[in-house]
Formats: sequence, C-alpha cells, structure tokens
Amino acid sequence: MNKLSVIKIGGNVIDNSEKLHQFLLDFTALPGDKILIHGGGKIATELGTSLGIEAKMVDGRRITDIETLRVVTMVYAGLINKNMVAQLQNKGCNAIGLTGADGNIIKAAKRPVKEIDYGFVGDLNETSVSSEMINNLLKAGLVPVLCAITHDGDGQLLNTNADTIASAVAVAMSDRYDTSLIYCFEKRGVMRDIEDDNSLVAEIKMAEFEGLKNEGVVSGGMIPKLHNAFEAIKSGVTAVYIGKADELPLIDQQNFGTRLIK
Amino acid sequence: MNKLSVIKIGGNVIDNSEKLHQFLLDFTALPGDKILIHGGGKIATELGTSLGIEAKMVDGRRITDIETLRVVTMVYAGLINKNMVAQLQNKGCNAIGLTGADGNIIKAAKRPVKEIDYGFVGDLNETSVSSEMINNLLKAGLVPVLCAITHDGDGQLLNTNADTIASAVAVAMSDRYDTSLIYCFEKRGVMRDIEDDNSLVAEIKMAEFEGLKNEGVVSGGMIPKLHNAFEAIKSGVTAVYIGKADELPLIDQQNFGTRLIK
Repeated sequence: MNKLSVIKIGGNVIDNSEKLHQFLLDFTALPGDKILIHGGGKIATELGTSLGIEAKMVDGRRITDIETLRVVTMVYAGLINKNMVAQLQNKGCNAIGLTGADGNIIKAAKRPVKEIDYGFVGDLNETSVSSEMINNLLKAGLVPVLCAITHDGDGQLLNTNADTIASAVAVAMSDRYDTSLIYCFEKRGVMRDIEDDNSLVAEIKMAEFEGLKNEGVVSGGMIPKLHNAFEAIKSGVTAVYIGKADELPLIDQQNFGTRLIK
Repeated sequence: MNKLSVIKIGGNVIDNSEKLHQFLLDFTALPGDKILIHGGGKIATELGTSLGIEAKMVDGRRITDIETLRVVTMVYAGLINKNMVAQLQNKGCNAIGLTGADGNIIKAAKRPVKEIDYGFVGDLNETSVSSEMINNLLKAGLVPVLCAITHDGDGQLLNTNADTIASAVAVAMSDRYDTSLIYCFEKRGVMRDIEDDNSLVAEIKMAEFEGLKNEGVVSGGMIPKLHNAFEAIKSGVTAVYIGKADELPLIDQQNFGTRLIK
C-alpha cells in the first residue's frame, strides 16, 4: 500500500503568518500522498466581533448559531482555506481546498439536541467520509486541504471539529493507504517531565497507555487526545504522531513528536 | 466529442434564495457534463459595509484593495460558493466548489497599473485555464462550481470578473468538449423591441452581428457582451446563449434566450 500522511494544524500555526509560511514549506516537502486539515484560529473570532456577533457559550461549550456558522464558513472555507491553497500552489504543492460538502467527501449529522443545543455542529460516523472521492483527487495529483466545515446532505453546512475530521479521514483512507495521522499542536509531544524539554516520550504502544496514565505521564487534556489516537489505530491507522508544527521535517527520521502505534 | 455546458449566473439569481433554489434544481437537471460559474451579489457589499469597508471607486471603476479582497474571498469562495455546493449536493448534483487557486485551474496576472490601479484584480490569457485539471474533475464525476477568485501563482489571490472566467473556461474546454457557454442575466436575451416581450431574437450568426448593431437591435451594454461571445466562438466554443436564468430548462429544446453561433 502507498503511504498517506493526514496532517492537522491548529490555530497557533494559522494565526502566525511566519509560522504558517514555514509549515507550508515543510508540508510541501513531505514525500508521498498527503492531506492537510486545518481548524480556525483567532480570525473567525475577530471577524465575529467586528460584525457584532458574540461567541455564544453554554456551560463552557461553544454554540454555533446561524450567524456564527456564516462567519466560520466565510473564514474557514474562504479566507483561511483559499489563502493557504494559493500559498501552497506557490510552493509547488498542487493543493485543492475543500469543505465536506465538496464532492460530498464528508457527510455529517447535525448534533442532536439533548441538554445543550450546540446549533449547527456536525458529528461524524464510520460512513461519513468518502474515501473513494478523496482517492480520486489524490490520483489526479491533488493535495486536499480540508477545513472544519461539513454538510448534512440536506443542503445545510455544519461546523465540525478539525481533530475529529482528521481522525475520520485517516481511518477511512486506511483501507487504501498505509496511513499516518499527524497532529501538530503547541507542545513537542508527550513529555515525561513538563519542565524538561528533553523528556519527550518518543513512542507509546497501545498496551503502554494505561500504565502511563497511572504513572501520571499522560494526564489532563492529553488523555482524551491519546484515547482518540488509539481508537484511530484500532480502526486501521498505522501510526498517530503528536508534535510541534515546526518539527514536522523530523518525521522523515521518525523523530517527530510522540509516535503512537499498535 | 462529449457535450459540456459552462453556465454563468450573476447576482440577481444569487441574491434571491427562491430564484437560486429553482435555478440549482434546473442546473442539476441539465444533462451532460457541466460547470457553474458565479459572481458575487449584494452580500459582499453588505458585509463590506458591516465591517466599515467602503466600496472604492475610481472613475466609476471598482477597486479591489486588500480589505475588499478579504471580503470577496470570504463571501464568494466561502459563504456563497459553499452554500451553493451544499444545496447542489442535496439536489443530487456532485458539486465541488473552487477558486482558480484550487488545483491551479485558473492562473491570472495582476492587472498592471496604468492610469488606474485596480488593486488585486486578475486578468486572464490563453494559457490561464488548466483544461486538463478541470477535465480530471469532470471524469471523476464532479461538477465544478467556480467563483470569481483566481490566483497569480505567487501566493496571491485575485478578484476576477466572472463573465471573463466563464468565457476563458469555455474556450479552454472546447479542445476536449463540444462546449456551450450560457450566460444567465436579467433579460430574456437580445430583443428586437425592448417594449415587446415577444420580440426575442432566437439566433444571431456571427456575420449578422454588424448588421444588428447598425439597425440598433444590439446596442449599449449588449455590444461588448455579444462581441466577447463571438470572440469565444472564434476560439472554439460551439454556441453562446444569453438568456434569463428561470428559462434555463428551455435550453433542451434550443429555446433558451438568444443563441449565438458561427
């Protein structure tokens, strides 16, 4: 099977034009087939504020009302996605910017209203991602750049967590490709000692996860992150990497961040 | 050669959600390969106003400064394009929404500064459109939906007239397809008598154009429109139609608007 890298970047890269420029160079240099998935960043919040649309929170959870959906559609699918594609083209990467509506590549379901009505938020399941259409694009020499917008098939766009999209895409593609899922975030990976920059845990096997939780090496927000990563591995993804965007070139030497494997 | 329809709609359809809904149904029902190209509409102007960005005009010409480019990128490539794609998906049309940067399908050149600096406006030439990449998408069963944003290949997005994009795409595709170019606008087509709704000129051959200009049947803004249409025909497009969006279904019976042919 051919290798495929599914890479997710977050707001910390998108919000910093120098970091973004360097990341897009590193991304372009990565060998093999690849897919980029990006979240939002501060720009959406800033645009919302300029338009007098306040971020709506209920119990600490962000709500996507119809006005917020308009803003994120403009910012994620328009401003961020298309500028990123134009920059990738300049760097020699034949990028194509997409939402889940395009080519029906990700069909989500609007989150059911229980205690909280999250608004226009889309959840994914095992059949959400069309690996066939993504494969067609890859075969045409294209590099899909996906933003955090999906659709429900009934004409409604939906806001969908970019980490979730990255995972669902990687799982769906793992039938056809030897797929790695790479999360770029603020830290170098899982650290044995948060104070010590040289204490990176290079590799965690699925069987070691429980032990590291008990030791306290993996704690807080890292627990659900790693849990979701191992779920993706159980569903066919070869390896999940968690590391810092500016260390992406190290992935060639298997030296990038923390590598999670079976 | 297979038939291909390149259809351009303007703001009058986009701004009216009922008209747009009906148009997208009619577009979906059109047989054969097809490409949709859309302009802006009032939404961009309204968003600009909400953000305190005034439309900049010099000698009656609209200027695309960097702030205006941000707005049109958000509205054309994000809000309008992606909502249209989601609605087309719902109607059974496998649409994919694109700018010229995506897949490098339309590479423009920033308009040179002479008397007027138009700002971030892109002009097209004979090599701007990648018919190969558009063909790849059509062969994958996709229906490209192009907005009026292109790029210069150096990482810069550019605002580009949608009529010009439609014409350039139709000309480029005419090497591979029996291509019709269909402009939807406010009127039924060229009218012998503007007061008489039954005076539609069904067909104009290239050789008849001068005569109709001299007679005054074609006048004002219709002259450059028809001139550009015949230029497209000279460059390989089989027929150009100019008519009203809500009469699109009549094109099957060759009964839509005014048909321009060699």
